[in-house]
Amino acid sequence: MTQDYEIFELGTFKFQCGLAVPDCKLAYKTFGTLNAAKDNVIVYPTWYSGQHYDNEWLIGPGMALDPEKYFIIIPNMFGNGLSSSPSNTPEPYNADRFPNVTAYDNVKAQHRLVTEKFGIEKIRMVTGWSMGALQTFHWGAMYPDMMDLIAPFCGSAKCSRHNYVFLEGVKAALRADAAWENGRYTSKPEKGLRAVGRVYAGWGLSQTFYREELDLKALGYASLEDFLIGFWEGFFLPKDANNLLTMAWTWQNGDISANELYNGDYKAALGAIKAKAYVMPGQTDLYFPPEDSQNEVANMPNAAFIPVPSIWGHFAGGPGTNPEDVKFIDDKLKELLAS
Amino acid sequence: MTQDYEIFELGTFKFQCGLAVPDCKLAYKTFGTLNAAKDNVIVYPTWYSGQHYDNEWLIGPGMALDPEKYFIIIPNMFGNGLSSSPSNTPEPYNADRFPNVTAYDNVKAQHRLVTEKFGIEKIRMVTGWSMGALQTFHWGAMYPDMMDLIAPFCGSAKCSRHNYVFLEGVKAALRADAAWENGRYTSKPEKGLRAVGRVYAGWGLSQTFYREELDLKALGYASLEDFLIGFWEGFFLPKDANNLLTMAWTWQNGDISANELYNGDYKAALGAIKAKAYVMPGQTDLYFPPEDSQNEVANMPNAAFIPVPSIWGHFAGGPGTNPEDVKFIDDKLKELLAS
Repeated sequence: MTQDYEIFELGTFKFQCGLAVPDCKLAYKTFGTLNAAKDNVIVYPTWYSGQHYDNEWLIGPGMALDPEKYFIIIPNMFGNGLSSSPSNTPEPYNADRFPNVTAYDNVKAQHRLVTEKFGIEKIRMVTGWSMGALQTFHWGAMYPDMMDLIAPFCGSAKCSRHNYVFLEGVKAALRADAAWENGRYTSKPEKGLRAVGRVYAGWGLSQTFYREELDLKALGYASLEDFLIGFWEGFFLPKDANNLLTMAWTWQNGDISANELYNGDYKAALGAIKAKAYVMPGQTDLYFPPEDSQNEVANMPNAAFIPVPSIWGHFAGGPGTNPEDVKFIDDKLKELLAS
Repeated sequence: MTQDYEIFELGTFKFQCGLAVPDCKLAYKTFGTLNAAKDNVIVYPTWYSGQHYDNEWLIGPGMALDPEKYFIIIPNMFGNGLSSSPSNTPEPYNADRFPNVTAYDNVKAQHRLVTEKFGIEKIRMVTGWSMGALQTFHWGAMYPDMMDLIAPFCGSAKCSRHNYVFLEGVKAALRADAAWENGRYTSKPEKGLRAVGRVYAGWGLSQTFYREELDLKALGYASLEDFLIGFWEGFFLPKDANNLLTMAWTWQNGDISANELYNGDYKAALGAIKAKAYVMPGQTDLYFPPEDSQNEVANMPNAAFIPVPSIWGHFAGGPGTNPEDVKFIDDKLKELLAS
């Protein structure tokens, strides 16, 4: 396959944790054309283990993210295998020595891409699903004067304690496999990766999704076991274990206030977001429940709480799996962009 | 510790799966005194990995399950380490060769205890939490003329597909540990058992429980990590891995109609339950959500749907962790017993 993305060279990038990795890379893909005024920009970060192509379901002619109108940038998250990651970084910062990356680090790097590479000063909207939403909140709090709109969906500004615990289960399942060898594996920790898929399966979709057998009726799997193997194990088996752990660290430690700007004052960070915001949790999301979004919106000056009326759990927001949810989100983004 | 329970010798017990295990044992404990009319009987089965003493929180003078009024029998479930289990059965039916036990098998054995050992023909009430509720439903459908009342709480008559998937995650985490050795372990698969605890932690309690920090404020743990180690890993580490897998099989394959009485006709089995029933799910239970109980009640002739208004997730029903929930359930059981 021809490489369908570009690399922005970050040089030596100093991560928040204190490690400074030479020749750091930010992989990204753009859609559409930056106009002369440079005011048609949408930034749309990736999610846990997703790569830029996994974001493309929300982009297209006639959609809110219309490349005929907007210049859309999808930056790949550190650790996702395309931007600098445990799997693609040379010694000595490779594998288990790759830094503990924060969403703050990701957005710092993305800001450099946007400003240094493209000379963009103003962003129309930042949006993203799941950990993409985490980065969206960070954009809003780190660069409050830079964008008009944010639309984080099925995600949060700070990892909730319950969400943290869910991820502890995912990590423990992977690490229970001796083949993982504390991150120094020489072959794929296959049992651990399959276990990650099985642990994730119950969390990703709602009780109602399974009750209504949408794995069979909507997604076309032959049986529940077929869904567990074909979809869930199949999704995680090709992933690099250290990459998954790096991104899990980013997720678990996500907090828009964990930086020098807000020094842990979470409400202050939420209150500093100037952009008009549509915060859109999935109505049945088990790890980003709507209540968490409500609490965020209550502390944001210009935000609306708009739950996605879906039984697809976390998948209400992506990756484009359920056409009705895609339409709901797309419609809301159109409404927001028109405001 | 002095043994605080009795053994009922089942002899060679033929399990539904076709294996006939010699010298099968049903461990049980009783409270109170069987009256002359033998009409003051309550049967109260155990739950996933629980043993009889884990049920005792619901028994006491002045409570619904008052040993001064009732003769209360707690039968231990097969696989729980006290009744016949992979861990205590002699070769060749030990370890990974122990039968796949059904709830039907458990209730068959319990029925023999009740009738053969005690000569009981009529039961006032069967009640139980979680897998205890599964067995309660089975009592109702297998011996519909034998009891007046059933009160299954935080459980179901048939394992839902989502609940099945949650347990796949638990099992996969355990099995990812090479020390498990397909059930022929010579030492404890410690990493797997700890992983089981971490996977379970997100499921057992609700998002709201964690948001409100009840692990710290109500249960007194020093930190979230302390709760994960002290409570969750601590709970599962002493358990036998094959026992856990046997009970998980029982749970995942729980279905009151999977037997010669109903031949898979789930609605017929629910409809055959004559006992007056209080079906009490936890309002925030993540794997036995109230909707499943509502569906059951809709198919039962004499049942009331009574959700426990609790933010303790599955622990709304046990094991006596939250005093308010204990009071709610105890009050409802009193009401039911008075009817």
